[in-house]
Amino acid sequence: MQRSDSAGIGIGFYGNSETSDGVSQLSSALLHANHTLSTIDDVVLETVERLGEAVKTELTTLEEVLSVRMELVAATRGARRQAEAAAQYLQGLAFWQGVSLSPVQVAEDVTFVEEYRWLAYVLLLLLVLLVCLFTLLGLAKQSKWLVVVMTAMSLLVLVLSWGSMGLEAATAVGLSDFCSNPDTYVLNLTQEETGLSSDILSYYFLCNQAVSNPFQQRLTLSQRALASIHSQLQGLEREAIPQFSAAQKPLLSLEETLNVTERSFHQLVALLHCRSLHKDYGSALRGLCEDALEGLLFLMLFSLLSAGALATTLCSLPRAWALFPPSDDYDDTDDDDPFNPQESKRFVQWQSSI
Amino acid sequence: MQRSDSAGIGIGFYGNSETSDGVSQLSSALLHANHTLSTIDDVVLETVERLGEAVKTELTTLEEVLSVRMELVAATRGARRQAEAAAQYLQGLAFWQGVSLSPVQVAEDVTFVEEYRWLAYVLLLLLVLLVCLFTLLGLAKQSKWLVVVMTAMSLLVLVLSWGSMGLEAATAVGLSDFCSNPDTYVLNLTQEETGLSSDILSYYFLCNQAVSNPFQQRLTLSQRALASIHSQLQGLEREAIPQFSAAQKPLLSLEETLNVTERSFHQLVALLHCRSLHKDYGSALRGLCEDALEGLLFLMLFSLLSAGALATTLCSLPRAWALFPPSDDYDDTDDDDPFNPQESKRFVQWQSSI
Repeated sequence: MQRSDSAGIGIGFYGNSETSDGVSQLSSALLHANHTLSTIDDVVLETVERLGEAVKTELTTLEEVLSVRMELVAATRGARRQAEAAAQYLQGLAFWQGVSLSPVQVAEDVTFVEEYRWLAYVLLLLLVLLVCLFTLLGLAKQSKWLVVVMTAMSLLVLVLSWGSMGLEAATAVGLSDFCSNPDTYVLNLTQEETGLSSDILSYYFLCNQAVSNPFQQRLTLSQRALASIHSQLQGLEREAIPQFSAAQKPLLSLEETLNVTERSFHQLVALLHCRSLHKDYGSALRGLCEDALEGLLFLMLFSLLSAGALATTLCSLPRAWALFPPSDDYDDTDDDDPFNPQESKRFVQWQSSI
Repeated sequence: MQRSDSAGIGIGFYGNSETSDGVSQLSSALLHANHTLSTIDDVVLETVERLGEAVKTELTTLEEVLSVRMELVAATRGARRQAEAAAQYLQGLAFWQGVSLSPVQVAEDVTFVEEYRWLAYVLLLLLVLLVCLFTLLGLAKQSKWLVVVMTAMSLLVLVLSWGSMGLEAATAVGLSDFCSNPDTYVLNLTQEETGLSSDILSYYFLCNQAVSNPFQQRLTLSQRALASIHSQLQGLEREAIPQFSAAQKPLLSLEETLNVTERSFHQLVALLHCRSLHKDYGSALRGLCEDALEGLLFLMLFSLLSAGALATTLCSLPRAWALFPPSDDYDDTDDDDPFNPQESKRFVQWQSSI
């Protein structure tokens, strides 16, 4: 019993830490995905604000300065239109804005449940360990009350083991079912929860050559708008600066804004590409379907072994009881060495009786 | 001895699997980084080829078709110049082309060494386990030859344990030294091995706001070239198609090529951004400096415990030997139960003597 139980407890600790590893991988992937999504929103917001600010200040100043030459005013107005168009295209890229589902919330919920599950298992494992040790102590000391208490405790832990085995089996079956084909299920669930279009969701959840980037058109349009602002600004620089020195400052500041916007645009392209979010999805799935499922199977094995060992204990303790000396004073003596010849004979008798 | 050794063996197995996890995380990060780097090269090569093909076929056809109207030929030539410029800018983005260092090779080397290290430790752990079991068997059976053989084996395993502890201590010290400030060391080493500029390497190894994207300018320039090709093609479509119906086919095909090139360009921007490669670097470092180092410390603890346990065995076995009966025939008898009163007395004698 002791043998199978100590192996069982080792397996239980391993399974518990493996499950915990898998779940923490899931929640760290969720946190990373949340970071990507919120960075997309931030970059879009920042860029749109920067473009709006440039339209309001520099381009307006420029129009006033150049108001004498109509063709230069027209070029400035063209740049303003393109900046407004770019801001509008970019605005549409913040697809996670206003979505009520927060990956951070999901990660926190998962971590919260996992912490209690982990603690409950550690307590169960320690309880099994203590029951084993005290049962052995009771047998060695031939203390009747300890054996009685431990029989009751064994019964309790046996019930707990069977209960936890039922829970683990149910979770393992559900999880394997989910893991056999997770994409469709996760896609549908996320669509229900977020209300995002299935184009966007399949782009991120599948991320292969067959699914095209749903932001491709917006990205291309805003890229063209930015390039056309650049060429209009260059034309203005060539034409306006020799005649209107007051135009130099707003033009240089606009060039700088355009450079920063192009940097943000490249960051946005990188963030919106499915690689990063799909990698998080893959790592969350691996955590759940490899580590957590494996840990769960080990926990089931532990429950099975400990239930078996406890059942054996419960069956054999009454027989050991029958071999105890009638008086209970015995456990007051100091000489409680199980290897003491006299006691050892009784021990061997009990051993061969089970 | 048995107690501390079985704990030691458990710790050893745990440390061995932890180290192996860390190293496999390192090599999978290297493989992922290699995938990113080779995809960059492939996308650049493909895009440059596609642009060159478009210049050679469609733009040449278009020039021939439109040769009557000089201003349309000029626009076509402008598009050709921009396409050639874009191809040249993009060509410079394949920074890993021609670099002799291959992450796949490094990952394979690491995996190769790790496989043998893992196997050697498993064999050492099994050897310690077998020595313990056979020593106990020798004591229980009071078989002199087994005790002699096991004393010799214990000596061998003791030497192996001390040797492995020395190796582990040296590796752990080196690894902690490396892990206390890895960035500078890895940056210098990679620079020596690859000959890449420190701009590019610090962009990928540090990846923070302070380091600007070294490909920013090339990306912006090729983006502008692509946008200007687009506007020239649109102008041509407006002007040429009503008069020259033969121009429609090459123009549509050019538009299609431009769309595909813009998609590839966005993929390239995402691949070149430091997020993905920096995440691989971070995960490789975590594998090495968290999991592998932790596993190494557990292996050291195992070596220490097993060396202690084996030293105790070596000291106590000669005393047990002295208590064996003089004749060696004893181990032929069937009655080898250590709990047999007669034997158990000797066992208790030996127990109290150590």
